[in-house]
Amino acid sequence: MNILVSEVGPRDGLQSIHRTMPTEAKLRWIRALAAAGLREIEVGSFVNPKKLPQMADAAAVVRGALDLPGVTVMALAPNLRGAQAAGAAGAHKITMPVSASYLHSLANIGVTTDQAILQVGEVVAWRDSLPAGARPDIEIGISTAFGCTIEGPVPEDRVIDMAVRLAEQGADSIGLSDGVGYANPAQVKRLFTRLHAEIGAKAGGAHFHNTRGQGLANVIAALDVGVTTFDASQGGIGGCPYSPGATGNIVTEDLVWMLEAMGLDTGIDLARLAEARAILLEGLPGEAVYGYLPEVGVEKGFHYASGAAAPEGTGKLVARPAVAA
Amino acid sequence: MNILVSEVGPRDGLQSIHRTMPTEAKLRWIRALAAAGLREIEVGSFVNPKKLPQMADAAAVVRGALDLPGVTVMALAPNLRGAQAAGAAGAHKITMPVSASYLHSLANIGVTTDQAILQVGEVVAWRDSLPAGARPDIEIGISTAFGCTIEGPVPEDRVIDMAVRLAEQGADSIGLSDGVGYANPAQVKRLFTRLHAEIGAKAGGAHFHNTRGQGLANVIAALDVGVTTFDASQGGIGGCPYSPGATGNIVTEDLVWMLEAMGLDTGIDLARLAEARAILLEGLPGEAVYGYLPEVGVEKGFHYASGAAAPEGTGKLVARPAVAA
Repeated sequence: MNILVSEVGPRDGLQSIHRTMPTEAKLRWIRALAAAGLREIEVGSFVNPKKLPQMADAAAVVRGALDLPGVTVMALAPNLRGAQAAGAAGAHKITMPVSASYLHSLANIGVTTDQAILQVGEVVAWRDSLPAGARPDIEIGISTAFGCTIEGPVPEDRVIDMAVRLAEQGADSIGLSDGVGYANPAQVKRLFTRLHAEIGAKAGGAHFHNTRGQGLANVIAALDVGVTTFDASQGGIGGCPYSPGATGNIVTEDLVWMLEAMGLDTGIDLARLAEARAILLEGLPGEAVYGYLPEVGVEKGFHYASGAAAPEGTGKLVARPAVAA
Repeated sequence: MNILVSEVGPRDGLQSIHRTMPTEAKLRWIRALAAAGLREIEVGSFVNPKKLPQMADAAAVVRGALDLPGVTVMALAPNLRGAQAAGAAGAHKITMPVSASYLHSLANIGVTTDQAILQVGEVVAWRDSLPAGARPDIEIGISTAFGCTIEGPVPEDRVIDMAVRLAEQGADSIGLSDGVGYANPAQVKRLFTRLHAEIGAKAGGAHFHNTRGQGLANVIAALDVGVTTFDASQGGIGGCPYSPGATGNIVTEDLVWMLEAMGLDTGIDLARLAEARAILLEGLPGEAVYGYLPEVGVEKGFHYASGAAAPEGTGKLVARPAVAA
């Protein structure tokens, strides 16, 4: 079986770090990720640069990544204006966050959940008006699908109802997102089972954070009910200002090791992923990064799902720059 | 459903830390763990005190824990001599490690795998000779069941064959142990499925380490095939000298949060578990401890499996001593 690991570090990760990584450093990192075998990379966010100056160069980063062979270049856009800017830059795929939490929706993108759903329809209409061959895919992540730091628990019926309405608006895929690390594996199984039952082939991937250490456990639960696309960030960077002390996204390195060890093909090379990590650390000196595999590498006797062997320790970070944390 | 979380920190955790925790400090910690609701605690190891001076007070610790109401006091013993010493101290349950890796067996307990299996028979015969009411349970952990840092991959047929032979020797339960963090969730499902098929009610619990961040993912896989007992250590202390940089056991705090959030009853109180963590940190100033939940506490709207609510942040370590890392 093939699994798509969608790397969100250059967007979800870098937007959560106060320091702005220079455009050239972002592109060096993105190229290294592509060289490691990542086939989908979320490279930036088309939002108000006053609010997120780390993402002000999103158009340049999208354009700089377009020549990477076989890589889907994805960008986040909260609304039509952002989507049009992402499309103008050439993004292959646009991901739009729609909050299941009413209060988070207002706090995050300044509109109600209902308005956000209608905005998706506007973006789809604009996309459909483009010439064939220049139409980006429109992917939705239903954020706070597993609970919200402001609102608390979010009714599962509301999440599934939203997914149906988003599919009706013409979105190509609708995934479930836990940006705050509230999700537990039982809830993950329930919600993705219902998502598949209700919207079938439009059911999208899972976006998990590791705030309570449960990220990979949630992946196992999601795999069990048919999810095959997982967001992750190299070094686990990312996070939510409402979860102090929490780490961010699930760690790409650990996810890839686990999937490959299980016999699930990601197409990603762990030695080259370690090289990309070294480039990330160079670009973010002193910032905290996470992950277990980079500390120890693969075990003795490890094989990729393809059957290729890798020597013990593969994936261990050897080129850690002296300036990094 | 009820899950037994078996706390192994006072044995697996403390034996991996160079410093020796004083007996009184161990007992303060063990009492706090019991007060938090832990119903089974592995309190020490009856091995050569020259090799593991941290465990030299095992008899005193066992005796000191016997008055804790409702707590199964467990101790590790590698052979008949150790088992008899544990029994004399009053241990309710004796756990014996038997390595599936031939080379690890020699390195760890100085006998071959076949000899170790026969030693279990000797211990069972001794146990059966004791007066009724004074007979400790004999539990086996098949170590390196998922691979070995010396030998590499371990054939699954060998592990299952050993389990059958250990059941024939009269052991009460036979669990599978991954002390080196090699296990992946697919392998966990395969091996525990076969274990249950071959030895039925004698199939024991799972002992996972978190070396590659996969510990809780392995728990989800094991739950899925009927495992209901999980070893864990508070603060994730523990580990293997062959896995440099790796963290130790799965973290009790994170495991309990995940299980309770899933609706699986552990009987453990997260606020009191945080109090026990503070006592552990006092007893081990400067040592590294792990865990996500103690950084953030439970999410808004959290309920225990029992239905009892806990306020947001419950389980967060607030009383961190100034001297600890």
